[in-house]
Amino acid sequence: MQRAEYPSLHGISDREAEELCETLRRRIIDVVSKTGGHLASNLGVVELTVALHRVYDTSRDRLVFDVGHQCYVHKMLTGRNGMMETLRTFGGVAGFPKPAESPHDACIAGHASTAVSTALGMAIARTRLGEDYKVAALLGDGSLTGGLSYEGLSMAGQRREPMVVILNDNGMSIDASMGGVAQHLAKQRLKPQYLHAKEIYRKLMLATPPGRGFYRFSHQVKEGIKASLLPGSMFENMGFRYMGPVDGHDVKGLTKLLRHAAAVNGPVLLHVKTVKGKGYGPAERTPDTFHGTGPFRTEDGAVLKGTGGESFSARFGSELQALAEKDPRICAITAAMTGGTGLSGFAERYPRRFFDVGIAESHAVTMAAGMAKQGLLPVFAVYSTFFQRSYDMLLHDIAIDKLHVVFCVDRAGLVGDDGETHHGLFDPSFLKTIPGMTVLCPASLAELSVMLHRAFYEYKGPVAVRYPRGGENGYHEDHSQEPACILEEGTDLTMLSFGSLTGNVLEVAKRLRQDGISVQVVKLNQLAPLPSGRVLEFLKKTGRLLVAQECAEAGGPGEGILAAVAAGGLQLKSAAVCSCGEGFVTHGTIPQLRKLCGLDVDSLYQKAREVAVHGG
Amino acid sequence: MQRAEYPSLHGISDREAEELCETLRRRIIDVVSKTGGHLASNLGVVELTVALHRVYDTSRDRLVFDVGHQCYVHKMLTGRNGMMETLRTFGGVAGFPKPAESPHDACIAGHASTAVSTALGMAIARTRLGEDYKVAALLGDGSLTGGLSYEGLSMAGQRREPMVVILNDNGMSIDASMGGVAQHLAKQRLKPQYLHAKEIYRKLMLATPPGRGFYRFSHQVKEGIKASLLPGSMFENMGFRYMGPVDGHDVKGLTKLLRHAAAVNGPVLLHVKTVKGKGYGPAERTPDTFHGTGPFRTEDGAVLKGTGGESFSARFGSELQALAEKDPRICAITAAMTGGTGLSGFAERYPRRFFDVGIAESHAVTMAAGMAKQGLLPVFAVYSTFFQRSYDMLLHDIAIDKLHVVFCVDRAGLVGDDGETHHGLFDPSFLKTIPGMTVLCPASLAELSVMLHRAFYEYKGPVAVRYPRGGENGYHEDHSQEPACILEEGTDLTMLSFGSLTGNVLEVAKRLRQDGISVQVVKLNQLAPLPSGRVLEFLKKTGRLLVAQECAEAGGPGEGILAAVAAGGLQLKSAAVCSCGEGFVTHGTIPQLRKLCGLDVDSLYQKAREVAVHGG
Repeated sequence: MQRAEYPSLHGISDREAEELCETLRRRIIDVVSKTGGHLASNLGVVELTVALHRVYDTSRDRLVFDVGHQCYVHKMLTGRNGMMETLRTFGGVAGFPKPAESPHDACIAGHASTAVSTALGMAIARTRLGEDYKVAALLGDGSLTGGLSYEGLSMAGQRREPMVVILNDNGMSIDASMGGVAQHLAKQRLKPQYLHAKEIYRKLMLATPPGRGFYRFSHQVKEGIKASLLPGSMFENMGFRYMGPVDGHDVKGLTKLLRHAAAVNGPVLLHVKTVKGKGYGPAERTPDTFHGTGPFRTEDGAVLKGTGGESFSARFGSELQALAEKDPRICAITAAMTGGTGLSGFAERYPRRFFDVGIAESHAVTMAAGMAKQGLLPVFAVYSTFFQRSYDMLLHDIAIDKLHVVFCVDRAGLVGDDGETHHGLFDPSFLKTIPGMTVLCPASLAELSVMLHRAFYEYKGPVAVRYPRGGENGYHEDHSQEPACILEEGTDLTMLSFGSLTGNVLEVAKRLRQDGISVQVVKLNQLAPLPSGRVLEFLKKTGRLLVAQECAEAGGPGEGILAAVAAGGLQLKSAAVCSCGEGFVTHGTIPQLRKLCGLDVDSLYQKAREVAVHGG
Repeated sequence: MQRAEYPSLHGISDREAEELCETLRRRIIDVVSKTGGHLASNLGVVELTVALHRVYDTSRDRLVFDVGHQCYVHKMLTGRNGMMETLRTFGGVAGFPKPAESPHDACIAGHASTAVSTALGMAIARTRLGEDYKVAALLGDGSLTGGLSYEGLSMAGQRREPMVVILNDNGMSIDASMGGVAQHLAKQRLKPQYLHAKEIYRKLMLATPPGRGFYRFSHQVKEGIKASLLPGSMFENMGFRYMGPVDGHDVKGLTKLLRHAAAVNGPVLLHVKTVKGKGYGPAERTPDTFHGTGPFRTEDGAVLKGTGGESFSARFGSELQALAEKDPRICAITAAMTGGTGLSGFAERYPRRFFDVGIAESHAVTMAAGMAKQGLLPVFAVYSTFFQRSYDMLLHDIAIDKLHVVFCVDRAGLVGDDGETHHGLFDPSFLKTIPGMTVLCPASLAELSVMLHRAFYEYKGPVAVRYPRGGENGYHEDHSQEPACILEEGTDLTMLSFGSLTGNVLEVAKRLRQDGISVQVVKLNQLAPLPSGRVLEFLKKTGRLLVAQECAEAGGPGEGILAAVAAGGLQLKSAAVCSCGEGFVTHGTIPQLRKLCGLDVDSLYQKAREVAVHGG
């Protein structure tokens, strides 16, 4: 059934807005129960998004999302309601804002804490170019734990550009908001007490003439009381006009306050309290489960698909607990991804050796440096894409001093339905530039176990262990003893791979053998330092090379091996690198995306046949 | 004359401490007048450093510097007084803390905003391992503008680990502290007013029985007034116990307060007011001039050495003004480096188109994304080493959306006496991994002018223009039309280079010609996308390649060219890459460091002779 699209919400009544919210809420539950996706956060912003669309015209006003997985309602209201059944599927609606998809999406948003900086840049551009559209940034309280938000807020408060920063405060980031600011926000519970105190104060003061004089004089003092008892003082100190906290599920009140905020000639912070999963019992009760979910049964919220076998994340978590049991120096750090990185069990068992820093990957690495310097064995478990935030800290705080910190780089490679902003395709390139960094890449759970142990006890300096989302891909053995190994001997062509593509390459080799082409299958266990000498020895046997790498081409292992070939004076009859190209790949299932990149078995088979015969 | 080293300061009297400060102050002026270095910041922390050494034993307590160029007094007090004449010279005392130099230096510190995170990691390690040393972090108010400080403070406030964060507030960062927090700190001027108001309030309240009751009840309210009128509210909200502000030149008072702070069982923020350049007239009057200075005449502060010819930074600044005059969309962004990047003139002429974001390179890039998205032409001028902080923002906020932002990457290559933390040796490697990024590298001022124009008007997407510290190095022409060009034809050997090494390579080619070796001199004008096809055509003429690159080897242009050679099936008779190795190079003059890396004319000449005959 074709779903109708919604016209502009500017003229609708409060009553119509409330009804619309109910319709949208039911639609979200319906869609996400079929497609999977970010349910709880979207249910939490239904009223807020409707209110935003009553006040702002996103075809010209700029509504900047932060992280952006709470954009479903926005997408439904901007011409994509009829396509929501394709959410996060290959060729369908993206799960994050995407300007290429609609002019209503102001900018890319997949990493946290970017919205205020982006919105400030937009507000500056508007003023410089003499235009008159409005600018608003929408961020969750989790995004406030990132330093980039602070940098943006600090400058936005000082520049005085009219813009509204909407703080969607649901009392949690992806895991729990950590840090002083989260505690500070929690102070809003003091509000009734503040109001009570204010009233007593007023009555007392106005009872005597000197009191009345002081009451007038003390405007600044009153503001002081207010600012320090209400959660806005930090923002007011930065230069923002603070409004709120306001009930984020009262669409009428929200709309009124948003209109007011949007009309202020300066920066406003509007503090909105929302409930994650609002209006859907199972999601309200366990919002973490419904943060990112697979398809589920709407009646009771039962998730329909199993998660498959053991994941690399789970193996990391259990293996780390085993190691930590024997070695009290081991500590684990996560940046608001306790569950995602497999650390929930560790956190429960070793709460005093577990550190959730919030969405602050830069701080995580620098803090780990301090811990390592003073004798601990810290491991920072982080998704590859978010680890990009730590680049300078790896160079400056870890590498110069050769500190022994283990980095468990999860979601390395294609991640599937989260798309461009979430694939982990750059870490092989940027990690190899870190002096002294060892990069290990298990292709099976057994290899992860072995390599994690080695990372702690056999290497010095920084060590990264990178592994994919999900579980094994057809390869279950352990051949990790050497930095590079031959999995299958062959004479016609060398196929070199690592990590989760190993299974695909073994399958290709099997097919080629049936064609009479003898493939030498080489697996890299270590990406940095690249074991070039060893690989060159292997290569001499075949003189033909096909590299299959699930990462960006520029700076990837393929380039490194080829450079070693040229530097070593080895003449190849033919060579090719199959990769994820420039590194930005759309959303879809991992098999779909591998096919798109030419990394599926069929594509690699075709390419291997070409390389095997090219150049005679 | 051999200078005496200082024994522990733990037993000295206040009087002795004051005398010591005067001695140290004179010594700093004397040393830096001869060696050059960071004068004003070190004069500002004489009393603070002496007080720190009276309270802490840095052989076991951990004193963590932020940025760290204010470490001279600390070095003088920890066994390096006799070596201070070698400050910042090759093989001599480093200008920044360096654990490899002394166990009294707790960690590397050259980039800003790292101290709180590092110190927190150390405090956690101390507690976990049951040890009892003290931990303190010393940071300037400029470092507070960086989001990493906020991430560290936020978590430190929440964790409750005993540690002292000393805020050295001299009212300026390298340029002026920008942002709301700086304004917030300035509020301490309200202190007398606050005290006055408190007194009136107390009298009024205690005059009546209900008033007395309220006065007691309102403890929280009073704390509220105090917190919002004094500058500590932000820190107290984060969970710190705030002390100060205190006069940073009163060594007696400082020592007392530091002893108190160090004894607190939780995180303390000690706010210390210092005067940059304190005690030396010329430096107090113009602290910017004496932030980083060359040798000067102590009598009047006259700088002895000229700066040489026009610098790349100066040319960038004047060229940008000329472009901005014609194009109102052009805006300039700096991260607290207005003078250093050559933007002072632009800032004066176009104050409304100039944006100093403070030490916030991440925010600078994300804000630029917003500006570009809405029609401006922003340029972010940044030192190569600090640009490392922007890596994720380049990928996520700029590249996915293909935004047209110009990055002027100053101090690319070796920077000399600032050493490991400041060389710009990684940008060719990390910038090439940014999809759609064009990287241009002028070798002369004329080329910088031309390339800057092209960056704005001939390219789409992100464009970086990288150039070295200082001025030209023997090459003054413009051959920048093509991404790669032949400067001199030759048949025996291709020497490929770019940027400021061009002059060296031309000199080597001249010498080799006298030896009867005909060198083809190829200059890269563009590092990304690498013009591999064109270079391979050139290479076919000689079959021998020597790449000379003033950057790290891993991921550098040499590796890219060699990979293209292998992928293209070209057989070289010999090939070598001369580079800065892993990328961490000590301090010294640029000629000394080039020699260390084998990039001086003599070393390159020897290497070129080898490559020219190797392999027959």
